[in-house]
Amino acid sequence: MIIIGEKINVMSKTIGPAMKAREAKPIQDLAKVQVAGGADYLDINIGPATKDGPELMEWLVKTVQEAVDIPLSLDTTNAEAMEAGLKVHKGTALINSISGEKSRLEKMLPLVKKYDANVIGLALSDAGVPRDANERVAVAVDVMTALSMEGISLDKLFLDPIVMPVCVAQKDALEVVEAIKLFKQLNDPPIKTVVGLSNVFNGCPEEVKGLLGRTFFTILTAVGLDAAIADPMDKDFMDAVKTLKVYQNEILYCHSYLEQ
Amino acid sequence: MIIIGEKINVMSKTIGPAMKAREAKPIQDLAKVQVAGGADYLDINIGPATKDGPELMEWLVKTVQEAVDIPLSLDTTNAEAMEAGLKVHKGTALINSISGEKSRLEKMLPLVKKYDANVIGLALSDAGVPRDANERVAVAVDVMTALSMEGISLDKLFLDPIVMPVCVAQKDALEVVEAIKLFKQLNDPPIKTVVGLSNVFNGCPEEVKGLLGRTFFTILTAVGLDAAIADPMDKDFMDAVKTLKVYQNEILYCHSYLEQ
Repeated sequence: MIIIGEKINVMSKTIGPAMKAREAKPIQDLAKVQVAGGADYLDINIGPATKDGPELMEWLVKTVQEAVDIPLSLDTTNAEAMEAGLKVHKGTALINSISGEKSRLEKMLPLVKKYDANVIGLALSDAGVPRDANERVAVAVDVMTALSMEGISLDKLFLDPIVMPVCVAQKDALEVVEAIKLFKQLNDPPIKTVVGLSNVFNGCPEEVKGLLGRTFFTILTAVGLDAAIADPMDKDFMDAVKTLKVYQNEILYCHSYLEQ
Repeated sequence: MIIIGEKINVMSKTIGPAMKAREAKPIQDLAKVQVAGGADYLDINIGPATKDGPELMEWLVKTVQEAVDIPLSLDTTNAEAMEAGLKVHKGTALINSISGEKSRLEKMLPLVKKYDANVIGLALSDAGVPRDANERVAVAVDVMTALSMEGISLDKLFLDPIVMPVCVAQKDALEVVEAIKLFKQLNDPPIKTVVGLSNVFNGCPEEVKGLLGRTFFTILTAVGLDAAIADPMDKDFMDAVKTLKVYQNEILYCHSYLEQ
């Protein structure tokens, strides 16, 4: 199970201004605390970054990897910014993301190949968000085909079914569960899967967000989820991750397993 | 999702003496609070009840059904006590349990038929607890065959894979998950499945029991679990049950769904 820490995001009220001001400390602190919480990757989300995207991403990658020695998930739709980050990234980066959208595929696919990066493939096409599991699979197959035609190994790919908020699209949750099951059958060895977990409780009251997230994560893991972009500073969530790892024999049970 | 309240048990320090003294009030109070917590059935566990089993079970069934209007899971290895309870039970009772053990099958199977009861079939044979998912399936098939040969419909059956404590048999958890998946493929329409959930955290420290139980329950439900014998007075557990029901579209999401 791979946890991708979601907290370094330009939309954050504290981190957004720190990014603009190129203020390293709050960003490095947030990197360290996420890694201490159990993150395996850190997502660096600068959004579309139309202004000074390349320079910002380069600075962020250097700044974060100075503080913590783990790979980063570079999260931007700006291909120039993506490449600027990839150039200075130590280790194997995760490109977040490509999709079935033609323009995004054309811009990002060469970078996946050139930098031998891992990549998240969203089940998102020019027709928008898929309506059910089958439409998600159709887009996933398009993404897989595009990778294969570029000579990129499918073991670089994490398929993301696109999670919708349960408060506006309750029935879609079952389609996402079904999509994860189907994704795992598309290839042998199975392709890895990932979700942006927080989307599921977007718009819900604070007091139910954690439970909604943990429960959906556990359901998805039971049917084959490999990774989640989530909050590694949420102790209840990370305790659930550890408990799942016990049941999956990824860690050895001992009475103090939550404290390890 | 069916929750079978586990609290009325002869091994309980308060309920055991109340059973012996035929003291109705603590037992009826415990029945009411479990139903208020969300139990769909109540388990009435009198153990082997070698002394006055039939009279005790008869009194318990009457006493509990006087207080709450739901079906009971009659939990004893004493066939005479089982029949005494079935005779006075209102509605369709759940016989807990038969298994692949020859003597238990011979004693209990006629009762399933005579009282048109539902029945839990344990994946337990004269060889003991099965070592893996395949051995569980083999016993399950024996139980199904025995029911069919008696002309009992398989829609009466809940298959129980036998959950072992994670602290002594960690690797067995994956076998139970696999067994639930396989059980659901044994028949069309699929046979219902059940677990005794508390077994999984038996022997673990209090502070991890709840999380271990909720997480295992969520994993099992994601792969096809239909029912659990569990504690409906554990609010964290019942909140997880409600959250699962949201994701399975059994209840409608609203911001206050935990308060419904």
